[in-house]
This record gives sequence, C-alpha cells and structure tokens, in this order.
Amino acid sequence: MFPKNTWYVAAMPEEIDAKPLGRKVCGESIVFYRGEEGRVAALEDFCPHRGAPLSLGYVSEGKLVCGYHGLEMGCEGKTIAMPGQRVRGFPAIRAYPVVERYGFIWVWPGDASKADESLIPVQEWHDNPEWAYGGGLYHIQCDYRLMIDNLMDLTHETYVHSNSIGQKEIDETPCKTTVEGDMVITSRFMEGIEAPPFWKLALRGNHLADDVPVDRWQICRFTPPSHVMIEVGVAHAGKGGYEASAEHKVYSVVVDFITPETETSIHYFWGMARKFNPKDKALTATIREGQGKIFGEDLEMLERQQKNLLAWPERHLLKLNIDAGGVQSRKIIDRLIAEEQGGAVPAAETASA
Amino acid sequence: MFPKNTWYVAAMPEEIDAKPLGRKVCGESIVFYRGEEGRVAALEDFCPHRGAPLSLGYVSEGKLVCGYHGLEMGCEGKTIAMPGQRVRGFPAIRAYPVVERYGFIWVWPGDASKADESLIPVQEWHDNPEWAYGGGLYHIQCDYRLMIDNLMDLTHETYVHSNSIGQKEIDETPCKTTVEGDMVITSRFMEGIEAPPFWKLALRGNHLADDVPVDRWQICRFTPPSHVMIEVGVAHAGKGGYEASAEHKVYSVVVDFITPETETSIHYFWGMARKFNPKDKALTATIREGQGKIFGEDLEMLERQQKNLLAWPERHLLKLNIDAGGVQSRKIIDRLIAEEQGGAVPAAETASA
Amino acid sequence: MFPKNTWYVAAMPEEIDAKPLGRKVCGESIVFYRGEEGRVAALEDFCPHRGAPLSLGYVSEGKLVCGYHGLEMGCEGKTIAMPGQRVRGFPAIRAYPVVERYGFIWVWPGDASKADESLIPVQEWHDNPEWAYGGGLYHIQCDYRLMIDNLMDLTHETYVHSNSIGQKEIDETPCKTTVEGDMVITSRFMEGIEAPPFWKLALRGNHLADDVPVDRWQICRFTPPSHVMIEVGVAHAGKGGYEASAEHKVYSVVVDFITPETETSIHYFWGMARKFNPKDKALTATIREGQGKIFGEDLEMLERQQKNLLAWPERHLLKLNIDAGGVQSRKIIDRLIAEEQGGAVPAAETASA
Repeated sequence: MFPKNTWYVAAMPEEIDAKPLGRKVCGESIVFYRGEEGRVAALEDFCPHRGAPLSLGYVSEGKLVCGYHGLEMGCEGKTIAMPGQRVRGFPAIRAYPVVERYGFIWVWPGDASKADESLIPVQEWHDNPEWAYGGGLYHIQCDYRLMIDNLMDLTHETYVHSNSIGQKEIDETPCKTTVEGDMVITSRFMEGIEAPPFWKLALRGNHLADDVPVDRWQICRFTPPSHVMIEVGVAHAGKGGYEASAEHKVYSVVVDFITPETETSIHYFWGMARKFNPKDKALTATIREGQGKIFGEDLEMLERQQKNLLAWPERHLLKLNIDAGGVQSRKIIDRLIAEEQGGAVPAAETASA
Repeated sequence: MFPKNTWYVAAMPEEIDAKPLGRKVCGESIVFYRGEEGRVAALEDFCPHRGAPLSLGYVSEGKLVCGYHGLEMGCEGKTIAMPGQRVRGFPAIRAYPVVERYGFIWVWPGDASKADESLIPVQEWHDNPEWAYGGGLYHIQCDYRLMIDNLMDLTHETYVHSNSIGQKEIDETPCKTTVEGDMVITSRFMEGIEAPPFWKLALRGNHLADDVPVDRWQICRFTPPSHVMIEVGVAHAGKGGYEASAEHKVYSVVVDFITPETETSIHYFWGMARKFNPKDKALTATIREGQGKIFGEDLEMLERQQKNLLAWPERHLLKLNIDAGGVQSRKIIDRLIAEEQGGAVPAAETASA
Repeated sequence: MFPKNTWYVAAMPEEIDAKPLGRKVCGESIVFYRGEEGRVAALEDFCPHRGAPLSLGYVSEGKLVCGYHGLEMGCEGKTIAMPGQRVRGFPAIRAYPVVERYGFIWVWPGDASKADESLIPVQEWHDNPEWAYGGGLYHIQCDYRLMIDNLMDLTHETYVHSNSIGQKEIDETPCKTTVEGDMVITSRFMEGIEAPPFWKLALRGNHLADDVPVDRWQICRFTPPSHVMIEVGVAHAGKGGYEASAEHKVYSVVVDFITPETETSIHYFWGMARKFNPKDKALTATIREGQGKIFGEDLEMLERQQKNLLAWPERHLLKLNIDAGGVQSRKIIDRLIAEEQGGAVPAAETASA
C-alpha cells in the first residue's frame, strides 16, 4: 500500500541520458526517456504492437522507437508512426506526469489529472553555490515503510553503523518527535561528545580540528509520501551547536527519497548535501563513498527484517518513544492512502508523540 | 497450450552420445538415450523404484541403468532387471515414440498410438553433398508462439539485428502472406539494394563480389506444430534474383525447430543449411558463429516480451499486415489443439491474409 | 512432517563461537549463540522490538544484543535491557531447549516442557582416546526421509559411489533388516572380496596390507527422529570379519544426523568416527576429505529425486527388500508424529522385514 497521487523520485538524470530506462514505480512498469529537446517523458513500458518493452528500444529525434519492429511512440502515449503502417487506430498507452527538477526525475504514478508540479518539494541545496551534493541509488527488498522507520529512528546508527557514525551518546540522548501538519520531525542534540569517524573526516574536510569535543545534531523530517531529509552535523563544542556560525561547524542534509517498486521492494535514492567547503570535489567524492558504504550496511538488516515480518505476519511490533517518528509517519501515509481510496478519512494527526 | 500428437525436435544426436539426456518437452520430463545398436529411446525420466531421474544414470549394453540403485530399464518402459530382485511386477513407465532422422532426435509427446514416422518433415538438405549445415540450441523463457511470430515477421531484423542482417529496405518492402493447407508462407523480395554485413560475408564465402547491388529474398514457411523454414539469400542484381543460377547467388534455408518445454519456455533449435560452397568447413563454422550471435539478440527481447504479456494478460495485441504470418500460424495451431481435445473444430483456414 | 518433540543436531560448536548463528530447524527460525559462561542458548530469531533477526546481532557479556537498535535479550527469551527503555512489558520470544554435548549443539524444536536431556543419544566415540572423528555439514534440498532411505539402503554405493566405496558384491549380498523397539537395523556381511579404494586407503592408514582379500560389513542403525549410525569396516579375510581383533581390521562408524530445515530441505551432519590409529591427525583429515567427496555425490541425486517426487505426487514408490530399512524407519517416524499430534497411534512395530 502506497499513495499514488504524489511525486516520487524515479531516476537520476544521467540514467536516461544514453538510452531509455525501464523501471517499476509503485507497481507501474514505466519507460523513462528524453524526448523532444531532451525533455523527460514517462510511458507504460509496453509497445501496443506486440507488447515488447519500449525500454529495450532507442530514442530517435525525440521519439521513442520500439526495438522490436520500429514503432515510433510519442511522449503522450500515442503512436506517431510505424514503417508501412497507418497508426491512427493504434491504442494509446498510458503517459505519466514526469518532471526533471532539483537533479532528479520525478514521476506521478497515480491519477494524472491531479498532478501538480508545484507540489514537488523544493530542494534548496540544488544548483546552489553554497552547497555540494553527492548521492547514489540502492535497490532493496523491503517495504518502503521499513526504510522510513529506519531513518526516523537513528539509534540504529549505534549498532548498524558502529564504525562510522554510531556512538553510544545517540542511545543515551532522548529524541523528541513532533508532528506539524503532514511533516513529522524527530530531533536529537548531543553536547560535548567525541565526533565519530565519519564526522572527524568531515571536520578535516572543512579544515577544522577533529580532536576536540563537539556538539552533534540530528533533525529528521519526514514528508509524504516517503521523503526523509535529515539535518546532520557537528560544531566545535561551546560555539552554539546547531546554531554555531559556519566557521565552527560542518553542516549537511542527508537526502533520502524512498520510492516503492512493489509492496516489498524499493528504489532508495540516498545522498548528502553539504554546506561547507562546497567547491572541493575530492571531498564530495570521499563523502559520497563513505556514505554509500554506511548506507549499504542497512541493506541486509532491512531485507532480513522484511523476511521476518512476512514469516510472522501476526506479530505486533513495539512502538517505543524512539519509534515515534516512524509511527507518526505511517499514520500520515495511512491517511493519505485512505483519502485516495475515498474511504473513511481519519482526523489529521497533529499531536506530538 | 501446444499440440502433443505431433513430432517435435527434442535434441541433437551428439547430446545423447556420451550419456543419457534429461529434457522436458511439452511439459513431459523425458530421458533420451541410445539403446540397443545405438537406437534412440525416450522414456519418462522417473525410475519406478524410488523416483530418481533415470537421466542421472548410464547406458550399459543398450539398457538404461538407474544411477541410484542399478535398476535396468528397457526402451519400452519395462524394467528388465535389478540386482537381487524379481522385476516382473514392477510398474512400467511411459515410453515415447522417438526417431533419429535428418540430423535430429524427434519425439512424439502425445498419444503414442497415433505416432507415424512418415509425418516427420523431410529435410532435403540433410546428408546431401550439395548442402552444408550448421546450427545450435538456445533455451528461452517464452511461449513458443512468440518465437513463431518473431520468425514469421522479419521486419524485426531491421531493429533487433541492425548490424548484421537488418536493413531499412525490409521495412519498406511489403510482405505477402498466403496459407496453403496447414502451411503459412510469408515472402518478401527486395531488388537492387546493398547487401547487409552478414550477406556480404556470405557472398565472399561464395567468391562473389560483395560491393555490387543485390536482390534479396525472404520466404518464411510455417508448418505445424512449430517449424519455420526460411529461404533466404541474395543474388547479384539483374541475374534473376531468387531464380538466379547458382553462380550468381548465395542461397540458404534458415532452419528453426521450436520445441515447447513448458507454456512459457522453449528449446530453440536454430541453424542454417546453405547451398553454396558446401565443402568449405571453415565457412560453415563462420556462418554458424555469426548466426548464433544474431539469434542470440532475440533472446532478451522475447523473454522481456513474455514477461510483459504475463503482466498485462488482458491486452489484445495488434494484428498488422506484417503480423499475418504469425496470426495465420496461430490459427492453424489453435485448430490442431482443438482437434486433439475433441472440441469444436473450426473450418480449415485457406484464405490468404 | 517431522517429529518436533525430540532432539536434533542443530550445529557444530565452532559455528557459534565467533558470532550468533541463524538456522531454521523443523520450520522454526532459531538463533543459536553462546550466552553466560559460553553456554549455548537458542531463541526465536526475531527481535520483539521491530522484528529484526537477532542472528545479525552480537553477544556482549553473555547477552544477545540486537544488531539493529541494541535490545539485549536473555537466554530465556526475555528482554533484559534496551538503551533508554523500560523493558518489563516487552513480549517474550520463544526459547528452545538446547544442549551442547558429544561435539554437537542439540535443539528440541517442540514442546519445551517435554525436553529431557537424558534422551540425547550417547556418542561413545566422543572425547574418547580410542576413537578419532572428522565430519562436516551439507545443506540439501530434499525431504529428510529421502536421506534416511539413502543411508538405510547401501546398494546405492555401487552406483552413486562406484569409484570409492561401491562394489558389485554389495548388490550381490542380501541384507537383513530387523526392528528392535524404535531402532531399525539393516546389515550386510561380505566375505573374501577385494576392498574398494576408500577401504584400501583405510587399511594403509592402519598399516595393513591392502592387496589381500577382506571381509566387509555394513550395519546401519536408524533411531528416531532421523539419526543413522553405520558400523562399517573391513578385516583381512579369515580373521573373524566383524569380530576380528583390532590388529586385523579397520573399524569405523559413519555418523549421520539429518535435521529437517523445511519439509523439503535438510541440514545434513555427516562424519566418521574411527577406532583405529586414532592419533594420526593427517589420516583424520584424509578420511574426512574423502568422505566429504563421497557424500557430496549423493546431493544431486537426492535433490533431483525430490523434484521428481514433487512433480509426480500420486506415484507409489516400490518397497523392495533392500528398501526395508527405510520403510521400517518411516513407520516409526509416522507413529511418533501421530503420537505427537494426539491422533490414533499404530501398534509399535517390532516385526522384522
């Protein structure tokens, strides 16, 4: 179960530069490609001629050409031409609203008449000289909500990422969860601690001492359908922490777009936007490599957790204080799904947990 | 759904020379082996003792010996002997009519009482000094009818095989489809064109110039249950085309025996019989390698098409003029299946499309 | 179907020394680990917090720590602690009776109240200076009863293991099967034969001539739920055979613990305890390597047999005299399963077959 009348990140732009990309989003098999003037298009990945996947074809002068028998498809799902054929009566295939923005390809897998580009969440770090960004994509066999849970409860860092970003103070410092409209915020502030290895690397990357006490913050923000942006960073202790001026801290946003492929698999777009030393491309590469390794540590845990939940479907999981971020996020998701299905709509959740 | 009271190619002879071969044909698990005097035999691949596959055993003095406990099976499915046992009461296993002919092992997976060796289609090129043959076997995850469609509409060559046998003139030249009894014929004749790379290679292999205009022909013949023979070749332009005398042309028959393994998988026996320079074994090897590479290009397309059709079972595919060969072939197959099942039999199809 | 109120071998001790081990036994997903003072513990492999597999965690001061969020689990299935949480109300998970004994980890997957350590079968060769032991573990996709059948009918050695322990005299020498309570015994004695290669190696390993006639014995003992111990060996002919004094023979016990994972897969613990030249560790390694290779030959046969039986579920297999060991063993298993399920209990089988 996932909301479908919403924007999901479907791809990174470079994935469709050379040839069409076939990818399933929310159970919809879609071909993404660059049509006229390089504008992204998204269609059902099904040629109306004989059912071949259009993603095995190629783009010619802005038209998607089926790689089996040469049918030329337009970006609205209507066949434009086919060698030796009159195509007017060919059945159309479904076109999906799709937009390239903020360095991603966004698709609306639901009712196209409701698609509104203004709903795509602004990514202020994108194409902004004060910021640098690096990221990647993982395919994981788990329900997208398990990844939301994961990102809204960072106590797991102490265990899953013990050698990089985990530290016992995360466990020891209570988090606070609030709900503001459709946004869920879970935050934790640690003071006067030793920076863990990943943050020592970041401090050095910003020409700051890494052997002094720091203040560390984690502010996780869920917004529907499944985006989790996490403000993270450390400042030299006593300089104001999260509010410290730029020369005393390293400040980043972990960017997580979690796109359901099926009920039990996701495309996980992860990255880090940093607001320090943005022109240092080697640092961008180093951070990206480190983050990729760290986030890869979650894969086995999530896939095995998913298998366990499928094997024990009747069990109720605990909802502790640390789980409040995920619990509240799921309530919002449930309400949006119910609204889409025209069923009873629970009252909006605004209470903090 | 496939006809079962018919001959299918099950194997190439060399596949059963060294040891028994286990292979599923039309859903039947069969062991093929050489029994007395090297004669091929085909039995259920199931030992009546403990259910082990007989194909894991070996042949001793013409008897198939189970590799688990030594039961000796005769070619008619009756146990001949077993160490320390009286075997008279052992249940028989099913024997399938099987014949080695024209360089292939043919099996009749249906009602054995109806098997008639005279129905095996004559392969005139076999063991004929005017011809040379080379071929191979691919296992593909698709309905056998998708491969028939593929071979009865060669416009796909322009797209799937663009670097070898494809050329735009295939798309530009209409084909003609006729039905003669249970045979479907789709033909296309192109005149004064440039030979594509594969045919230039063939021209050189017959000591003919490859840089002059040629006439090219493609005559596809479907016969039940799933054989497609395609006369192909090119002649120097103006020498009579398909009718040109042998010194001006290269003439071959593409040999396709498509054997259903299950509803959605096939054993695809492909090859080329050529009627030029037949003694040149290096040429045979070169052509075989080239054809194998070309036919390998169809695999991903067919397997992905099959997945799409399973995912969208309710969709009707188009039946364009170029699809007439496949459409008419399927009508014949449908009629044969209905006849086997004793259901209503449609009138024989003889109209051309 | 398998008895669950019984002891199964779950692991070799070294498998849980470094970290927890997740393994399914009789359909139960279990984590095995060393708790306080190194004592083995076995729990459901499911963290009550969020369902993560506990086997992905680690052991700290005798407590199993979940690798996701740090929940500390006790060896009785009750949560001991979790950072920042009061755990008294956390739901318990199931603990399984588990014992380390005779060089193996034994688990009781059924009703814990019925577990009785005294029922673990004594392995007299363990930790005994007169004996040496080597063994290993295979995972096989077959019903555990197919492996019992395999081991209770050694005529398969002639075919499956023709190059090592098979010889035609096994087939030619009738076996005798008796039932004593819940034990099934199938024995075969061969006299004045040539030792097959594996036994020639063993003779040399005991500094005995390998080029003289020998007497050979095989005494297979099944005991529930699925243990098969096989006395095997050869003696120089005319020295008393099985009863020969130690200096004229090589005497071993093949140790087989067959643990169902699912209905159609097993953990197969195999090994050989030998009562000759026990201090020769190189010999232990050589024998272990040879046995591992031999027992590996059974894998494909059993897995393919299993597939055949699933494909032809309606077929009745033969029950020949050579199959009596397996047939009688299955009767005992069936009775134990019926007893567990509280159904009608057949009279105890004591007749010999």
